[in-house]
Amino acid sequence: MSDIGEKAILRHIRSRIPSWGVGLVLGVGDDAAVVETGPRTLVTTDSLVEGIDFRSEWTPPTLLGRRVLTINASDIAAMGGVPRHATVSLCLRPDVTFGFVDAFYDGLLERCAELGINLIGGNLSATHGSIVIDVTLIGEAHECLLRSGALAGDCVAVTGTLGAAAAGARLLTQGARLNAEGGLSSTGLWTESSSAAVLHCLRANLDPAPPLTVARSLAERGFVHAAIDLSDGLSGDLMALCAESNLSAWIDPERIPLNQHAVNLERARGGDALALALHGGDDYQLLVAVPAEKVEDAVAEAMMWDVKLTCIGGFEAGEPLVSLKMDQTLTALSCVTQDHFKGVKRPG
Amino acid sequence: MSDIGEKAILRHIRSRIPSWGVGLVLGVGDDAAVVETGPRTLVTTDSLVEGIDFRSEWTPPTLLGRRVLTINASDIAAMGGVPRHATVSLCLRPDVTFGFVDAFYDGLLERCAELGINLIGGNLSATHGSIVIDVTLIGEAHECLLRSGALAGDCVAVTGTLGAAAAGARLLTQGARLNAEGGLSSTGLWTESSSAAVLHCLRANLDPAPPLTVARSLAERGFVHAAIDLSDGLSGDLMALCAESNLSAWIDPERIPLNQHAVNLERARGGDALALALHGGDDYQLLVAVPAEKVEDAVAEAMMWDVKLTCIGGFEAGEPLVSLKMDQTLTALSCVTQDHFKGVKRPG
Repeated sequence: MSDIGEKAILRHIRSRIPSWGVGLVLGVGDDAAVVETGPRTLVTTDSLVEGIDFRSEWTPPTLLGRRVLTINASDIAAMGGVPRHATVSLCLRPDVTFGFVDAFYDGLLERCAELGINLIGGNLSATHGSIVIDVTLIGEAHECLLRSGALAGDCVAVTGTLGAAAAGARLLTQGARLNAEGGLSSTGLWTESSSAAVLHCLRANLDPAPPLTVARSLAERGFVHAAIDLSDGLSGDLMALCAESNLSAWIDPERIPLNQHAVNLERARGGDALALALHGGDDYQLLVAVPAEKVEDAVAEAMMWDVKLTCIGGFEAGEPLVSLKMDQTLTALSCVTQDHFKGVKRPG
Repeated sequence: MSDIGEKAILRHIRSRIPSWGVGLVLGVGDDAAVVETGPRTLVTTDSLVEGIDFRSEWTPPTLLGRRVLTINASDIAAMGGVPRHATVSLCLRPDVTFGFVDAFYDGLLERCAELGINLIGGNLSATHGSIVIDVTLIGEAHECLLRSGALAGDCVAVTGTLGAAAAGARLLTQGARLNAEGGLSSTGLWTESSSAAVLHCLRANLDPAPPLTVARSLAERGFVHAAIDLSDGLSGDLMALCAESNLSAWIDPERIPLNQHAVNLERARGGDALALALHGGDDYQLLVAVPAEKVEDAVAEAMMWDVKLTCIGGFEAGEPLVSLKMDQTLTALSCVTQDHFKGVKRPG
């Protein structure tokens, strides 16, 4: 990498970036990029740090490039917005190969093209430690969907299925791997007969595919009051919605749409996928507050976008708290959230 | 740091951020921030990496917070824009103290207040290596001032004086230091009689004060065709203007406004501040292309903003090249630019 030099790498990257895109006035190359967004401009930023958020030996660089864009796009989507423009700062060890950088940008630019996002700026630096990837994503919206909008009586609903990303994380610790093209290179501890489930869960973890249009569509029709994307896990993110909306919430564990591949893999080892769905995180599905009288409409609208929307509980007046409802009995749920400085933290 | 935990630190930081500002609809705390900018939105991003862009033992954290905002604001200013909204990603070693983070945000928020910038998002992560600080700054403009706008016959002009930041970098290697409040704690190799010059140059390096309004004002009046901020050094940044405008340029070394403190310190050690001004970088003054017939107007307008504007050369038709003009003789200038992967690189 140090043989090639930063300027040459930046020239190479720049040559790969399309110069045209929606809202793009001036792309990479001047003191700042120039874009047109509005009426509301959304801004989100998320980092991936080697050793904390990803492991290089587990993560093909192409998928790393795709993922860092996806997780930021998920935040814009959860606000009811459309992603438009991204900046990417890459801080690399000097021993990282040019092939790594090129493959990272392969994935990033592929995902940009899929999502209609312009790459408008960035940096390349050397570091003596972990690889650090920072992406800031700019989107636009007419009306924004906040975490604070849930009302007492709203249903707690989620998109898609939960638990596959966390099952994928466990598979990675057991030696399962994807190859550079995103196919399965090793099933780890599992036999070939489980390869479809292993591949599904690894991809859910390393190359998530969140629903990016449905929240906006539901919001425009008044079918949803509040939204958050499921990055920390259902328990933690529902608690965040409760805190911002100043409500309590209950969920019926039997209604949680568990990912079938995760269920099968967990069952085979004598475990239960419910814990993965509740606390696992990284699913990047949407958690939304749906007005009770609009649940059928919302489910039908989501289906138009090929997204399954499932009502799993309800919001109620009360101190911010998340409970599991089983046989009409409420049990307070411990929220497990990630803490980068303390490892996994279990408050309450 | 790991005793306190990421969530607690984020809560503390968040409690310090003002919730109101120009164009701010929704600040920190949801999936994304919501702002209103326009008609043109400017986006720039710049990183500071420990060991490459700064050394912790040389840089009071308060000034680090101020500087990372300033260098991004300088990019927005060089586009003729107004800085508005910033995101900050901080990647820290686990051994970094809470006091460091708090002091960093002291400086950052102080500079935000001075410049009218809203802090709208960010991240806090742990890393096993160098501290990495990424800032993305969003600004707005009506008309943008590009690097590509210079015309043959335009004057090459610079704001302020040059060389002090590079002199400051040398002083740091010689043991001169600022204290946490930004005052002088050591003059290093220099006697007390030089303390005013040492303090000036250290501050120029660690807490630069670029002109942030004058480029916009000049552009609105048609007194300037192109602009770039002097981050890499006069030679390299003028070459960048030439390359983007497809012109050559000459500069008269005797007309370059050398910083008097840098001149005095260099003279005392038998050196010449011209090299610092030409290649030193980090001055964050503006380099602009001024139409020849507007030079007097431009100088007078800049003076209204208390900014000295000096014409030091001219743009001409020809292959991108920067020359020094001495006694009517042109000598091609080697451009020295920073390369993070190769150290200082000297092309040409």
